[in-house]
Amino acid sequence: MPEAEALGLLSTVPFGRIVFTDRALPAIRPVNHIVYQGDIVIQSQAGSALARAAENGVVVAFEADDIDAERHLGWSVVVTGIARRVDDPEEARLLERLVTPWIQMPEKSHPVRIHADLVTGFRLTGQ
Amino acid sequence: MPEAEALGLLSTVPFGRIVFTDRALPAIRPVNHIVYQGDIVIQSQAGSALARAAENGVVVAFEADDIDAERHLGWSVVVTGIARRVDDPEEARLLERLVTPWIQMPEKSHPVRIHADLVTGFRLTGQ
Repeated sequence: MPEAEALGLLSTVPFGRIVFTDRALPAIRPVNHIVYQGDIVIQSQAGSALARAAENGVVVAFEADDIDAERHLGWSVVVTGIARRVDDPEEARLLERLVTPWIQMPEKSHPVRIHADLVTGFRLTGQ
Repeated sequence: MPEAEALGLLSTVPFGRIVFTDRALPAIRPVNHIVYQGDIVIQSQAGSALARAAENGVVVAFEADDIDAERHLGWSVVVTGIARRVDDPEEARLLERLVTPWIQMPEKSHPVRIHADLVTGFRLTGQ
């Protein structure tokens, strides 16, 4: 699937799953997202494993899919790239307005921007 | 969420996402699964990155969710544990019948069994 098509599909769904390494173990969390200037933007809670990892930039994967489990039809897209906390105050304010967390975050949230270095996707064609 | 409740939720959906490390990068693939004797069973294609990793046992995460994106309701469960290829021929035959891959696998598939060492789950309560 061409990269532009895959990013286009990602922008049609409101959430996906962020994948990273936490204390040498694979970690995954569902999270709502937007596609912004070709990057994926999510919110991370201050003090969370993801926020700590993103402070210095870390390679993550972000997956979203839309799959009809009965007909085995649909698609999945995976973006792999460096996730960085957005530290520029103006950009952070803008992105905080665009991506409101679905869960109550007891601590302050920070936007994290994932650069889409590698974009892959596939379609299920049914059977 | 208690572990039994989380595994029970996992058994109500036909697919989830397997998370592992491939050449030092986080990797994720949607895959159909069953819950079998408290473990997660999926099919891996011979020669795939996951099959190679599971030959000697590797720590993976497996996530499934059922989320209503409009009402922000639903759940997500993550199992973390060691994934091992099922090498016992009788068990492999049984599991191959129980878990039919949704995608055409050009190479032979092997069942992989994920021991649920750590089971966590949460519910979205809407907002």
